[in-house]
Amino acid sequence: MNAPSTTRRRWLELTALAAGTAACRRSAPAPEADTGPNLLGKPVTAYGERSPFETAARALPDTRTPETAASRTPLQDSCGILTPSSLHYERHHSGVPKIDPAQHRLLLHGLVDRPLVFNVEEIRRLPSVSRIYFLECSGNSSGEWGEKTGRNAAQSHGLASCSEWTGVPLSLLLAECGVQKQVKWLIAEGADPCKMQRSLPLDKAMDDVLVAWGQNGEPLRPEQGYPLRLVVPGWEGNISVKWLRRIKAVEEPYMVRDETSHYTDLLPDGTARIFTFVMEAKSLITFPSGGQKLTSPGFYEITGLAWSGRGRIQRVEVSTDDGQTWHDATLQEPRLSMAFTRFNFPWNWDGKETVLQSRATDETGYVQPAKEPLVAVRGLNSQYHFNGIKPWKVMGDGSVTNA
Amino acid sequence: MNAPSTTRRRWLELTALAAGTAACRRSAPAPEADTGPNLLGKPVTAYGERSPFETAARALPDTRTPETAASRTPLQDSCGILTPSSLHYERHHSGVPKIDPAQHRLLLHGLVDRPLVFNVEEIRRLPSVSRIYFLECSGNSSGEWGEKTGRNAAQSHGLASCSEWTGVPLSLLLAECGVQKQVKWLIAEGADPCKMQRSLPLDKAMDDVLVAWGQNGEPLRPEQGYPLRLVVPGWEGNISVKWLRRIKAVEEPYMVRDETSHYTDLLPDGTARIFTFVMEAKSLITFPSGGQKLTSPGFYEITGLAWSGRGRIQRVEVSTDDGQTWHDATLQEPRLSMAFTRFNFPWNWDGKETVLQSRATDETGYVQPAKEPLVAVRGLNSQYHFNGIKPWKVMGDGSVTNA
Repeated sequence: MNAPSTTRRRWLELTALAAGTAACRRSAPAPEADTGPNLLGKPVTAYGERSPFETAARALPDTRTPETAASRTPLQDSCGILTPSSLHYERHHSGVPKIDPAQHRLLLHGLVDRPLVFNVEEIRRLPSVSRIYFLECSGNSSGEWGEKTGRNAAQSHGLASCSEWTGVPLSLLLAECGVQKQVKWLIAEGADPCKMQRSLPLDKAMDDVLVAWGQNGEPLRPEQGYPLRLVVPGWEGNISVKWLRRIKAVEEPYMVRDETSHYTDLLPDGTARIFTFVMEAKSLITFPSGGQKLTSPGFYEITGLAWSGRGRIQRVEVSTDDGQTWHDATLQEPRLSMAFTRFNFPWNWDGKETVLQSRATDETGYVQPAKEPLVAVRGLNSQYHFNGIKPWKVMGDGSVTNA
Repeated sequence: MNAPSTTRRRWLELTALAAGTAACRRSAPAPEADTGPNLLGKPVTAYGERSPFETAARALPDTRTPETAASRTPLQDSCGILTPSSLHYERHHSGVPKIDPAQHRLLLHGLVDRPLVFNVEEIRRLPSVSRIYFLECSGNSSGEWGEKTGRNAAQSHGLASCSEWTGVPLSLLLAECGVQKQVKWLIAEGADPCKMQRSLPLDKAMDDVLVAWGQNGEPLRPEQGYPLRLVVPGWEGNISVKWLRRIKAVEEPYMVRDETSHYTDLLPDGTARIFTFVMEAKSLITFPSGGQKLTSPGFYEITGLAWSGRGRIQRVEVSTDDGQTWHDATLQEPRLSMAFTRFNFPWNWDGKETVLQSRATDETGYVQPAKEPLVAVRGLNSQYHFNGIKPWKVMGDGSVTNA
């Protein structure tokens, strides 16, 4: 039970009112099941699919080049902390390559004593670990910096998802290669047509980075880097290089295209932040959120997600009065490091226009900032790394929009 | 890293040998990606699918009535602790009904002050929690009692899966109904054509039972009870009634068909155990397991799953010498109550025939028994609730079979 016990008794009466129906006073159970002529339902199957009545979908961009684009997780439809693999956000720089795992190879080379090449079967056979981590594109919620462009949770914050990843610790592979003393960075390269590259500090690689081959209990999905990808926990998604084909040990970062033309933050004074890897603490109310509608005044459970690239979520506060007062939300266990944490907060909507907000604090004590101080420090030149508080406005008619 | 650090250095050299290839001495990265004529991969999509190169499937029965049958999770292909919803085991008594959620209702009635009916939207709107729990059919591994009939992990142990379930605590709904003093049991009924029923003790219902509507971040799958099911943590799967349409508060159990003709355990003395709800501690080595083959002597990581209906897994021991010696496996975190826990154990196979086994201990101190003492107590009249140690035999040629 998330709701405080004192409010438990009230949920149903008031939500029944909220639904504007006489639901709780009807007395018939479900109608008979819809069966075929043999009076039986469908048989068992080898690989299941979702109900045809369910249609949650990734938000697709309006673009003529959907190969070099992003799709966004419909967080407004989410429950729990996991994202179904079919709905994990995508960001591709030259489309999803079709890779035969029998042909794929991973090369580790550069300043190492023993260059190594692995096939996929060899990687899967090595000691592996599974961890639940969020991934988030550093461009997530970029539409929040100026005039808001995302009308719902998918459009505004849907470049973030959370999965159980299974893979071989990169530290294990590097130890086998014999990384030389002068090495401080690695260059990771994908097998997509553009050969997406990123420079990765050796310290992080030795800490918790995975060469992942599994996601949510089965092999990676094609759009998530099948058959091999990096998972760099807590860092901007772009560095978790997909379709991983090569890791080179070097002394200095390579200043590759995707850490100079992209993924560098131009500040108001004309200087730029580069290698801004960590995704700072952030939260989002997923219900009620933009595009949804409250049917009538009454009790609702506000729910949402919080995450931090620096560890566990320690606290989430919710305001239902346009920021005048803040109250602790209930955090659902398990609260895992660098994973989504779901929060819940009971709310009695009086039917008046108001603004809902959430504010996350992580285990380092860092508090998610409001938009204004964030803009004051970072300006509006760069679209990356927006983690400001996200307000949703509830209108008098129950519709929810950007505040 | 799961492997003890002292063995870390050896994994690659020895597994490279094991693979029987010169993999680690090749020096070419992956070949160019297979792209279309525009030199790009595929575009972003609304709802993703797995790679066509991946074909893991539920094990289907050889039956003329696949509507009243079971399909089994391919645990030999599993990674991590989660089962993809598409591969969650099935057990249907009259097939999977096609249910329009707009038409579905849940009735709570019987000895209550206020009978209530909910539609699906109302249930989803109520305060919900998400928990990672295993489900296991009490008939799982029934082929282990006598001469073994399951050739691989799916066939022998695949009526067990693990998901993140999202739902409303049943205690909340019951509190709203005003359950009367004399009530000790509930009767839960599904909307499948046979109206599958089970008697559920009120104490358990008030403790941790969910009326679940979500699974692994999206609505329940049809074969998992869409749009509503019970999730009764740690108890035999049959009682987690799917396509839930009715809950009736009563004084005594109803002795319904599925707790008398089925799901009752006939003992050697002619008496029967009934309401044997809890799934006791159990474990299974998923690699190497039946039907798999080791390519040559050398290092392998043994991996598997353990679970208990009484709480957390405390310990898993592995024997690689036909039970002469046992060693602690590494347990992967998080170890959640009544969820799968993955274990790992490094093993250097010398190429000789041997038997691999795992033995789980849960937080109550209960130790998974060997088959013989289990049979001594329970006899061979009943197929239910086998949780004996599962041995896999590794042959000299590397093939793995039942021991």
